[in-house]
Amino acid sequence: MKEKLTLMIPGPTPVPERVLKALGKHPIGHRSPEFQEIVKSTTNLLKWLHQTKGDVLTITGSGTAAMEAGIINTLSKGDKVICGENGKFGERWVKVAKAYGLNVTTVKAPWGDPLDPESFKRILNEEKDIRAVIITHSETSTGVINNLEEISRAVKSHQNTIMIADCVTSIGSSNVPMDKWGIDVIASGSQKGYMMPPGLSFVAMSQKAWEANERSNLPKFYLDLLSYKKAADKNSNPYTPGVNLYFALEETLKLMKEEGLDSIFKRHNKHMKATQEAMNSMGLTLFAKKGYGSPSITSVVANNNLNAEEIRKYIKNKFDILIAGGQDHLKGKIFRIGHLGFINDRDILTAVAAIEAAIEHMGASKKPLGTGVSTAVKILLEKD
Amino acid sequence: MKEKLTLMIPGPTPVPERVLKALGKHPIGHRSPEFQEIVKSTTNLLKWLHQTKGDVLTITGSGTAAMEAGIINTLSKGDKVICGENGKFGERWVKVAKAYGLNVTTVKAPWGDPLDPESFKRILNEEKDIRAVIITHSETSTGVINNLEEISRAVKSHQNTIMIADCVTSIGSSNVPMDKWGIDVIASGSQKGYMMPPGLSFVAMSQKAWEANERSNLPKFYLDLLSYKKAADKNSNPYTPGVNLYFALEETLKLMKEEGLDSIFKRHNKHMKATQEAMNSMGLTLFAKKGYGSPSITSVVANNNLNAEEIRKYIKNKFDILIAGGQDHLKGKIFRIGHLGFINDRDILTAVAAIEAAIEHMGASKKPLGTGVSTAVKILLEKD
Repeated sequence: MKEKLTLMIPGPTPVPERVLKALGKHPIGHRSPEFQEIVKSTTNLLKWLHQTKGDVLTITGSGTAAMEAGIINTLSKGDKVICGENGKFGERWVKVAKAYGLNVTTVKAPWGDPLDPESFKRILNEEKDIRAVIITHSETSTGVINNLEEISRAVKSHQNTIMIADCVTSIGSSNVPMDKWGIDVIASGSQKGYMMPPGLSFVAMSQKAWEANERSNLPKFYLDLLSYKKAADKNSNPYTPGVNLYFALEETLKLMKEEGLDSIFKRHNKHMKATQEAMNSMGLTLFAKKGYGSPSITSVVANNNLNAEEIRKYIKNKFDILIAGGQDHLKGKIFRIGHLGFINDRDILTAVAAIEAAIEHMGASKKPLGTGVSTAVKILLEKD
Repeated sequence: MKEKLTLMIPGPTPVPERVLKALGKHPIGHRSPEFQEIVKSTTNLLKWLHQTKGDVLTITGSGTAAMEAGIINTLSKGDKVICGENGKFGERWVKVAKAYGLNVTTVKAPWGDPLDPESFKRILNEEKDIRAVIITHSETSTGVINNLEEISRAVKSHQNTIMIADCVTSIGSSNVPMDKWGIDVIASGSQKGYMMPPGLSFVAMSQKAWEANERSNLPKFYLDLLSYKKAADKNSNPYTPGVNLYFALEETLKLMKEEGLDSIFKRHNKHMKATQEAMNSMGLTLFAKKGYGSPSITSVVANNNLNAEEIRKYIKNKFDILIAGGQDHLKGKIFRIGHLGFINDRDILTAVAAIEAAIEHMGASKKPLGTGVSTAVKILLEKD
C-alpha cells in the first residue's frame, strides 16, 4: 500500500490539510491589494513568532538562501567573524563566510557535543574587531541544540558585533525570543516548524543588524535585504514571490497562533523527552550529549552492531514512516527522528513502535517488545 | 461574486487544475528515491522545452534569481559586457551587472521599440574583449519581443563571448531553440509559459557557458550553479528545493509535452494576432512597434484621453479579469494583456469583450460595440 507516508525527517515535515488546501488554490496577482493583505498579515504573524519588534522578511528560496542573506547583508570582505561549527550546518556557514572573503575564526565542538559559550566569550574579549558571531541553534545534522541564549547575551554587550543565528530547525518548535536574547539576524525555512512545504525562507533583522547593513558592501542582488525591506514596508515583494506558498504561510501561521507559542514549545519538549527516554529504555544510545538534545530532532546511535540505514529502510518499507539517516561520516551510524512541526502524540508512538519492530525484526532487541512504547506513553500522559 | 478571477497579467498566469492538485499533495523527502525520479523526469522535460542538449538547472527562487545566477556564474569583476536595455527588465540586468562590478556598455532602444541587432554586432566587432551579451527576449514591461535569434548568431561567432538571455516570458510561449540559435544561458521562471505558480526558476547552460564558469570568480553560494549541476547529475538538489512546486512542475511539463511545442507556439501566435488586431479594430494603438509584439503580452496605449488604470480597475471589478498596467513612466498610459501559459481562445474573447465594455462604459468607444470581439473571432477561426 502506498500514498500513506508519514514524514519524520527534520524537514520537509508533515503539512496540515488546511495548509495544503491553501497551497493548491488558484494564484492571484502578486501586486494586487488582495495579495498585499496577505503580505501584511504574514509579516505581523512572523514578528509574533520571532518575538520581535524588528523586521522579518520573506524570501522565495531555501533556508540556505536566508542564512546567506543574513551574512552578506551585514558584513564586508575581510570582516572578522566567529563561526560555531559542531555539525554539517555549522560547516555550511563557514563555507558561505569564506565564499565571500570573510576572515573566519571557528569555534568547534565534536559532532554530538554543544558549542561552548565560554570559547566565544574569550575570543570576543581578546579580539575587539569581531563583526559577527554565526552559529546554528538546533544543529539538524546531529540533533544538538546549542546555547544560543548565552552566546547571544555575550555578543549583545559588544557594540560592533552582531549575532547571526541559523534557527531553521528551532523557530516554531523551541523558544527563540529574538529581542529578549538580543539576536540580530535569524534565518529560518518554511519546511520545518512552520508546518508547510519548502520554498519560502525568512530573515529577521534587528536594528543593530540594519546598522551593520549600512557598512556592508558585499555584492548581491536577489538576496539584497534592503530591497525586501523597502517592499515589505509597502506590503509587497521586490520580485515575484511564491504566491501559493504565501497562501500556505498565512494559513499555517494562523494555525500556530491558534495553538499558541507556549503550547507549541511544550508539545515539542514533551515529544523530545518521550522519544529520548523511549530510545534509552530500549538500550539505545542518544547521539547528542545529555541535556543538549534538540526539541526538534532526536539522533540515535545504532549500537549493538545495528546498521542505521537498515533500520531506516525497514521502517520505510514496512510502516511507511520516513526517518533520516546520518550525514557524511555518520551515515549508517546514527538515525535521526524528526519530531518538529505538525507532529502529534500518535506520531511519537508509531515512530517508537516502528523502531522497536525494526530492531526485533533484526533479532537485536535488548529489552522486551513494548518497552519503548510504554516508556513513551508514560511521558505523553504526564501532566504539563 | 468573488473567487472567479481570471489572470491575464504577464505572470502569475492561470494554472490548470491538474497542476494545482499536484501542488497540494503531501510533501515527500527531498532525498528520497521517489523525489529523485521527479528531478530526473523534470530535468529531461526541461531540456526538451529548451531544445537543448545542455544543462537546465532548477532553482527555488524567482526569475530574477535565475538571471542573476546566469550572470554571476559566468563572469568576473571588471568583465566587459553589453546589456540590451529597452524596458524595465533590461534595466534590471544592468543593475545586476553593476552590483557585481561588471563593466557595462548598454545598447538602448526606446520603450516600445526592439533592440537593434546591428548595434550589438558593431560593438562586438570593435571591441574584442566583450565577455557577454545580456538581453531580454520578451520584454515584459513593454510587450516587445527582441530579435534574440539574430543577436545570438552574432555572439556565437565570438569565441570568448557568451549570450545570456532572459527568456522569462518567452520560454513555453515562443520558439527559443537554445542550441540552434547558440544561446549560452537562458533564465526563466515558473509562473509564465510554464503554467504553474511562481517559486521555481530555471537556468539553462551551454558547454560554452560552463567554460566561462571556469574563469568566473564572483562570490556566490546559494546561486552557485556548479553545486546545482553536481546535484542534478545525481538527480538531486544542493539545498532543500520547493518539493511541492516540483510536483507541479512535473505535471505541467507533461501537459506541455502532450500539447507539443509547435502547438504551444501556434496557440500563442494566434492569440497575439487576435488580440493585436482586435485592439487595432477598436481604434486603440499598440505600444510595441509593428512586427515586434510579444506572443506573450500585448501592450495597448490608452489613447483618446483614456486612463489605462481606470480601464484596468473597471475590468477587474466588473468582470474579475486581471490585466496589467504600465510600469514606471508608463503607469496610466498603457495596459498590458498577458496571453501566455494556460490561456485558451475563450480567454482571448472575454478579455477583448471586457476591454470593449470598459471603453463603452467610459463613453469613449470609437467603433460599434462588438467590433473588437468580431475581429478576434475571425482570427481565432482561421485555419493554422
